Amino acid sequence: SANIEADASHCSIKGFPLVRNISELPQDNYGREGLAHITVAGSILHGMKEIEVWLQTFSPGTRTPIHRHSCEEIFIVLKGSGTLYLASSSHEKHPGKPHEHFFFANSTFHIPVNDAHQVWNTNENEDLQMLVVISRPPVKVFIYEDWFMPHTAAKLKFPYFWDEQCLQSPVKDEL
Amino acid sequence: SANIEADASHCSIKGFPLVRNISELPQDNYGREGLAHITVAGSILHGMKEIEVWLQTFSPGTRTPIHRHSCEEIFIVLKGSGTLYLASSSHEKHPGKPHEHFFFANSTFHIPVNDAHQVWNTNENEDLQMLVVISRPPVKVFIYEDWFMPHTAAKLKFPYFWDEQCLQSPVKDEL
Ligand SMILES: [Zn+2]
Ligand SMILES: [Zn+2]
Repeated sequence: SANIEADASHCSIKGFPLVRNISELPQDNYGREGLAHITVAGSILHGMKEIEVWLQTFSPGTRTPIHRHSCEEIFIVLKGSGTLYLASSSHEKHPGKPHEHFFFANSTFHIPVNDAHQVWNTNENEDLQMLVVISRPPVKVFIYEDWFMPHTAAKLKFPYFWDEQCLQSPVKDEL
Repeated sequence: SANIEADASHCSIKGFPLVRNISELPQDNYGREGLAHITVAGSILHGMKEIEVWLQTFSPGTRTPIHRHSCEEIFIVLKGSGTLYLASSSHEKHPGKPHEHFFFANSTFHIPVNDAHQVWNTNENEDLQMLVVISRPPVKVFIYEDWFMPHTAAKLKFPYFWDEQCLQSPVKDEL
């Protein structure tokens, strides 16, 4: 269908100019209300093998799932503010009550490998805009329903929301 | 000396808070006129193993050396504009005449692994500010004197300018 063709055109690295205007790149919420995600330079879209960069905007109240991953992740906060919930307890049975870390425009922080975390726009009045850098793309995310779910019960979400279309497009469309 | 102690205090990952204000991080030109470099999250300073992020400002006319590296590198242009010179000829004897790619605020581009390149603030009126992401830190850079120097003659600069102090501080200070 025309729809499948349109999807597929986003998934090819061919035809991408070397220098790209970020504001002209595809932006979508990928089914998550309050999110605007742009893959600035990515594994599936642009053939990156070791690093991937996202530009994400969270409207007030929007948050990531509670999750962990074995890749490194760095945040650079461009606008707004929010809260990082971080449970440094990958050696215990479950994440447990997380520590709260407030951050602001011009903050940077990185997530220790395999620590469960959640990023939340806790500012009611402003969008939160961040650049996110990960290693070893595409990202493999384990999602927790709550902070006391055992690590072993966290559910792998792969491909992740924004990688789904291009990694599995034909299969998904035919189901 | 007090000087050495002051240097050393920049080199420890201990005492770094999880959330850091980028504008309070050490900024220096590391001996390169016209450059302002901040390691936002790095291998030597913050214990990153797979990714490193820099915030760099180039005054008008400032440029990187002609260089190559086997890591991946992504640029995100925050302010200003400039020119990327890129020679996609790692299979030939020398880089040769590079292609020119103009970029602007909100541009992104990445450097193909091992391609010789140079980033230049060719805008006479404005500073160029970029976020730079690399894989496999700390960066190992091979520098060319010109575009026709053989790949085999390019000279390894390791540790690179901003990694020098912390990777070799005691040795250097005693020479
Ligand atoms: Zn994460
Ligand atoms: Zn480079």
